[in-house]
Amino acid sequence: MTHTVDLNSDLGEGFGRWTLGDDDAMLDLVTSANVACGFHAGDPSILRRVCASAAERGVAIGAQVGHRDLAGFGRRHIEVDPAELVDEVIYQIGALDAFARVAGTRVRYVKPHGALYNAAAVTPVTADAIAEAVALFDDSLALVGLAGSELLRAAGDAGLAAVSEAFADRAYTPDGLLVSRREPGAVLEDPAEVARRCVQLVRHGTVTAVDGSTIRVAAQSICVHGDTPGAVDIARAVRRSLADAGITVRPFADPP
Amino acid sequence: MTHTVDLNSDLGEGFGRWTLGDDDAMLDLVTSANVACGFHAGDPSILRRVCASAAERGVAIGAQVGHRDLAGFGRRHIEVDPAELVDEVIYQIGALDAFARVAGTRVRYVKPHGALYNAAAVTPVTADAIAEAVALFDDSLALVGLAGSELLRAAGDAGLAAVSEAFADRAYTPDGLLVSRREPGAVLEDPAEVARRCVQLVRHGTVTAVDGSTIRVAAQSICVHGDTPGAVDIARAVRRSLADAGITVRPFADPP
Amino acid sequence: MTHTVDLNSDLGEGFGRWTLGDDDAMLDLVTSANVACGFHAGDPSILRRVCASAAERGVAIGAQVGHRDLAGFGRRHIEVDPAELVDEVIYQIGALDAFARVAGTRVRYVKPHGALYNAAAVTPVTADAIAEAVALFDDSLALVGLAGSELLRAAGDAGLAAVSEAFADRAYTPDGLLVSRREPGAVLEDPAEVARRCVQLVRHGTVTAVDGSTIRVAAQSICVHGDTPGAVDIARAVRRSLADAGITVRPFADPP
Amino acid sequence: MTHTVDLNSDLGEGFGRWTLGDDDAMLDLVTSANVACGFHAGDPSILRRVCASAAERGVAIGAQVGHRDLAGFGRRHIEVDPAELVDEVIYQIGALDAFARVAGTRVRYVKPHGALYNAAAVTPVTADAIAEAVALFDDSLALVGLAGSELLRAAGDAGLAAVSEAFADRAYTPDGLLVSRREPGAVLEDPAEVARRCVQLVRHGTVTAVDGSTIRVAAQSICVHGDTPGAVDIARAVRRSLADAGITVRPFADPP
Repeated sequence: MTHTVDLNSDLGEGFGRWTLGDDDAMLDLVTSANVACGFHAGDPSILRRVCASAAERGVAIGAQVGHRDLAGFGRRHIEVDPAELVDEVIYQIGALDAFARVAGTRVRYVKPHGALYNAAAVTPVTADAIAEAVALFDDSLALVGLAGSELLRAAGDAGLAAVSEAFADRAYTPDGLLVSRREPGAVLEDPAEVARRCVQLVRHGTVTAVDGSTIRVAAQSICVHGDTPGAVDIARAVRRSLADAGITVRPFADPP
Repeated sequence: MTHTVDLNSDLGEGFGRWTLGDDDAMLDLVTSANVACGFHAGDPSILRRVCASAAERGVAIGAQVGHRDLAGFGRRHIEVDPAELVDEVIYQIGALDAFARVAGTRVRYVKPHGALYNAAAVTPVTADAIAEAVALFDDSLALVGLAGSELLRAAGDAGLAAVSEAFADRAYTPDGLLVSRREPGAVLEDPAEVARRCVQLVRHGTVTAVDGSTIRVAAQSICVHGDTPGAVDIARAVRRSLADAGITVRPFADPP
Repeated sequence: MTHTVDLNSDLGEGFGRWTLGDDDAMLDLVTSANVACGFHAGDPSILRRVCASAAERGVAIGAQVGHRDLAGFGRRHIEVDPAELVDEVIYQIGALDAFARVAGTRVRYVKPHGALYNAAAVTPVTADAIAEAVALFDDSLALVGLAGSELLRAAGDAGLAAVSEAFADRAYTPDGLLVSRREPGAVLEDPAEVARRCVQLVRHGTVTAVDGSTIRVAAQSICVHGDTPGAVDIARAVRRSLADAGITVRPFADPP
Repeated sequence: MTHTVDLNSDLGEGFGRWTLGDDDAMLDLVTSANVACGFHAGDPSILRRVCASAAERGVAIGAQVGHRDLAGFGRRHIEVDPAELVDEVIYQIGALDAFARVAGTRVRYVKPHGALYNAAAVTPVTADAIAEAVALFDDSLALVGLAGSELLRAAGDAGLAAVSEAFADRAYTPDGLLVSRREPGAVLEDPAEVARRCVQLVRHGTVTAVDGSTIRVAAQSICVHGDTPGAVDIARAVRRSLADAGITVRPFADPP
């Protein structure tokens, strides 16, 4: 039996004079690029550059939609009226899709960022607003979210493909939730360990939780972070280990 | 012989709590809506509402692209690197086009706003950047600008349809230029006079200049302002006079 | 016995090309101006103009601090880290105080706006952050808030003057809370009725609640809205009725 | 004879999640900190942190005022109406001064940033607007600019102290102007060479121009860049060489 998995990462998160992460290095390693759309990060020239680089490499382009919050990088929870949220998401997808088209491809999926991701995981009305926006724009787009999240439930309700993801470098509770970043050990920094967990995740559909127990985690895509100091090293180790284990890494989304 | 003309107006220029003009009243009178795209005015919910209203009425939707300048309403000249300007224009067209598609139609043309309009009229590199952006996004879109402007020259060079416009409520010099807004009499406020000039423009291709001379002005579209106190009254008078004169008012752009 | 009261209103809430309310008309009627500071509304030229007009008329200037949220007009609840909120409030007070000084006076008080006002009424950590910011900037400034709110508790804890306000045009529950704007009858629009309630409030310290009962409401200041269509008429009726009742209207804050 | 000089650097130029340069390292080396004020860079928490660090070290705080242009980092020329520019500058100085006061000190000077610096060097109306803003806010503040610039002329006309600066790491033409950044060799990157030039500048009031000639350059302050990869190394070399040469490095501005 052949195993396959997708690797996704948040990219295009600079703004003007400010840079964040090494987009090109990450684009050599991942198969899906969650590209910031300008509301919490990403300016038009960054969007264009990342879309072009992704298209060249056959990396699928996703819209990393977020709150209108440059100052908070989209990490501040904002209570947006759901009807306005629908429109803010449509706006961002449309803007990014323009650059995807210029690069000869199309946006293939949507993944909310930061506080919007967290809210969409647990708040039905937020999840439904995002799914409604995606369905209105193009119902052939997928929605990426945490396994078991409201977002994936909403995606299904709206007739969209729901793609579940796991986090390569985050510790899990025995219940299958992410350990809060405020806890020690919440974020794993050893490339070898992160890589080993990825292989286990794909091969066995399991993760070793913080208490040592083995839990089931279903994931069609694995998120690797792109903006931490060791991000590229971790992604490289993950990619190599997956190859060594005979696992095929490819976008979950078919080319347009 | 049957005369036809298009009437265009700047719409969707509110932002959040702030409103400007009466979009719905104007949409009953014009045939092309230059919709602000969020950089100098227009938020996502406004864009969606105006696109929906325009689509319902068969009004053609155009992208009123501008500088990233909410504080200055796009009226401050900004020296943007031409390569960045290309990307800023693509971003805005893409965002608006998303709402046009949600409304069952598409963006049909692009018209720059404010300081960008003025710069594009006389600065080749600015005009070329805008034309390049439009051609990259979709070369079936038209560019609307002043007759004789660099923008229309650039549109032609880029293989785009170049649509010339005249201003219904502005005085012209004997050379065919607009009288500066700083001069007395630059803006006409009498609905009857503005309407009369429109009929003359369409029937004879001429305008009576400030010195009383008659000059030739070619225009496929007439711009009527949407944000002044008497805007709706003027547009109504124009529309009625054109009808009385047997002139057909319809979008210059075919439906998508 | 002589009764006195302060009238406050939210002013300076335009931005660039967009206007809101009639600042000068309101400044002839109120004694304290809550001036927007640029984060949710108000640009530098508006701040300067309103400060100059207020200073000319002897109207006390207060900082109407809000969330960084032009698109939502500060009405979207945003979960800002309390330490960052302290800094955002200091920034806004400082910016406004510069214009107050240019006008020959100083900011005399702080009143949070919109979602921040609501959060500060019930959330201790938010109220404390605002009070800390004010105390750090200048502990001779007062904080204005709802009677019984966390904000006024925090003001006291921080050694600041706590000024309680009531709302002239809002219905009250029998418990002394404001009826939600979503309920019918929440906002009173009849100038005569609003004016009558103001007189009762100052003379007797009571309000007639929605169920007809009489409740005690302590208020050193009454807020009259400045941005509704009938705002100036209501403020004028309130001012006249207070004068007719022999009530002195003057700022709660002494001149600097 | 004892020589003294001031070293100034642009600091506080991050925004939210984005960082730029090493503010603390630079604050150990310079004597005047040009702190970004939030329009082109700098958020409230950064302003507070940099002001506190500067105050601790006895580094003078200056307002690095710029255009409202986060996307362009203040490097895009914007034609702002001079009256509005006055207000934008007042706003920024006031905001920064709040944090200086919280840190127990005050803003001591103003230095425009980027495109505003360049425009103020050659455009009288821009220079006058900035000087007017500073004089309105507090006429004991100094203005820092290029020797021979319109800005220093305007400072003098407005009764402000005019402080001339030179650039440690920039090549000069034989006419005493800066070699354009577009030319090869415009920016010097060798710490030893930059340091040597600083000593010559202070001791002899001269610079060796690109053609090898020696030109006179008067400078009360030397600007060292804070945001380039080798910035801290260069500043350290400059500081050490000045000390070795018996030159005292201290703020041009007296403590408040």
